[in-house]
Amino acid sequence: MNEFDLIAKYFTRPAPGIDLGVGDDAALVSISPDHQLAISVDMLVAGRHFFADADPERLGHKCLAVNLSDMAAMGAKPTWFTLSLALPEMNEVWLSSFSRGMFALADQFNLPLIGGDTTRGPLSISIQIAGEVPKGRALLRRGAQLGDDVWVSGPLGAAAAAVMHRTGRVVLDATLAQRCDLRLDLPQPRVKLGLALRDLAHSALDISDGLIGDLAHICEQAGCAAIIDFKNVPQAIELNGLSSELICEAVLAGGDDYELCFTAPVVNREAIERLGGALNTPLFRVGTITCPNANTPLVQVFDEAGQLMALPFTGFDHFK
Amino acid sequence: MNEFDLIAKYFTRPAPGIDLGVGDDAALVSISPDHQLAISVDMLVAGRHFFADADPERLGHKCLAVNLSDMAAMGAKPTWFTLSLALPEMNEVWLSSFSRGMFALADQFNLPLIGGDTTRGPLSISIQIAGEVPKGRALLRRGAQLGDDVWVSGPLGAAAAAVMHRTGRVVLDATLAQRCDLRLDLPQPRVKLGLALRDLAHSALDISDGLIGDLAHICEQAGCAAIIDFKNVPQAIELNGLSSELICEAVLAGGDDYELCFTAPVVNREAIERLGGALNTPLFRVGTITCPNANTPLVQVFDEAGQLMALPFTGFDHFK
Repeated sequence: MNEFDLIAKYFTRPAPGIDLGVGDDAALVSISPDHQLAISVDMLVAGRHFFADADPERLGHKCLAVNLSDMAAMGAKPTWFTLSLALPEMNEVWLSSFSRGMFALADQFNLPLIGGDTTRGPLSISIQIAGEVPKGRALLRRGAQLGDDVWVSGPLGAAAAAVMHRTGRVVLDATLAQRCDLRLDLPQPRVKLGLALRDLAHSALDISDGLIGDLAHICEQAGCAAIIDFKNVPQAIELNGLSSELICEAVLAGGDDYELCFTAPVVNREAIERLGGALNTPLFRVGTITCPNANTPLVQVFDEAGQLMALPFTGFDHFK
Repeated sequence: MNEFDLIAKYFTRPAPGIDLGVGDDAALVSISPDHQLAISVDMLVAGRHFFADADPERLGHKCLAVNLSDMAAMGAKPTWFTLSLALPEMNEVWLSSFSRGMFALADQFNLPLIGGDTTRGPLSISIQIAGEVPKGRALLRRGAQLGDDVWVSGPLGAAAAAVMHRTGRVVLDATLAQRCDLRLDLPQPRVKLGLALRDLAHSALDISDGLIGDLAHICEQAGCAAIIDFKNVPQAIELNGLSSELICEAVLAGGDDYELCFTAPVVNREAIERLGGALNTPLFRVGTITCPNANTPLVQVFDEAGQLMALPFTGFDHFK
């Protein structure tokens, strides 16, 4: 049983009166005839999502960033958040840095912290965020349509390279390691992009578990499949010195970049490229939504020679 | 620095556009001209809020109950909740029991689970709940007024006695220990009472940290003080065999009963007593809201002889 089976078996039930329940980047609840609230929660645990000695200012940024990224993936405008914090001990130096990092990012979005809970315990941080979206306009995973282009919002793999370096799988030089760390520690949630994509995209999610695994979630919910042209998948320049196997893994299965993956009709290609320019966020067209086939994986990746690539990895699973 | 100083220093900032921010049982956010959303989050950590080998079905109940209790304390009608769950390992027996206990209570209130996050980590559970309240009608701590009666919604101390027994401070016989455990493990959130009190009370909160400490929170926010007649504070019958010192501590400083403490104008006494009868929840008038005095504690307790009691304990503080 994996993380997703667990959620499906024990925590997914009909939710009467709720527009969208468990299973997307956020839930949707109607709050007025014209608006829905998008609700999401992400929990980060020391030793699991971050190293126990992680810089607290960066950690404050990241905990909020991953939640803002969920709002971006829904096309929702973030409106408030709450914080559950378990701390091993009172540590004012840590608290001062953590709150500074968190609020610096919150201020970029005029996002108020409205409540929370603080307790002693193994270091973990759970942030819940809410955003508003005009009724029926949220970007759902199930919205992907046959023939849609598949896009990603930036180069992938640098955050995975940082993890590979920290865990000793590769050795990067100090400058390169620092650059990868920045991508891992300080992801920039694509909130403006998400809002603009409400007019252009059919579906979206944020890449937290790796492009292949996350795109498969879109396919599962939309009842479709996807093919990816590996040569079109933007690789972080920080990966240049790595082996082709590690590059492939970092780009296709590395999470933590928190770029958006979205699907959009072919007719919107030019508009999407213009949008990327306007937001200074280059957007990359990496594949196509196709018909599912019972005999092939939901997401297939083809190399430059047009050959199907054998991929020895899947999306991240906390209980694998 | 204690838990409350920590929150004030590092996590309390102006929240523009938010009706009520950090510091009450829940935050309040306007969602329409006529309604507000009450938002609360409570985190429970193994070894801190519950014993690591706690019965998972009871734990599922309790984690949701403490959040429902916050809605009750605001006079809000619970509408949905989310769950952040960190688990040391995949354990289907545990998950099955935990989710059964949680959903059994949720079903009592037709409360849907709309989303969450699941990860591996030291066992901890953070539930966020939302409820609706007509605009301006929520029961705020700061609403207490001079001359108000102070009420509690049931006998206090049984949950504290369970903790005293489990930690070896007292030895209860098996039957009594089981009864106390029920109060500790399966608190019944006073949601119906909270809704009805919107018409009758000036302020309310739920007693999670002990009557004295929690009533002091009302006094701090309302700029008042309170006196309590100890003889009128309802003592759980489970305390009968304990020493007077332990009874006093369990009743006045024991948290975890999750009864409501509320203040209401004298003119509403009869209506409140009728309400208690109608809900089969006996309500007890235990004291009075008074003027604050710089030289005395915010909450003073008087014994049967009218003498001020010396109290060697304060409210619970996770970082004390």
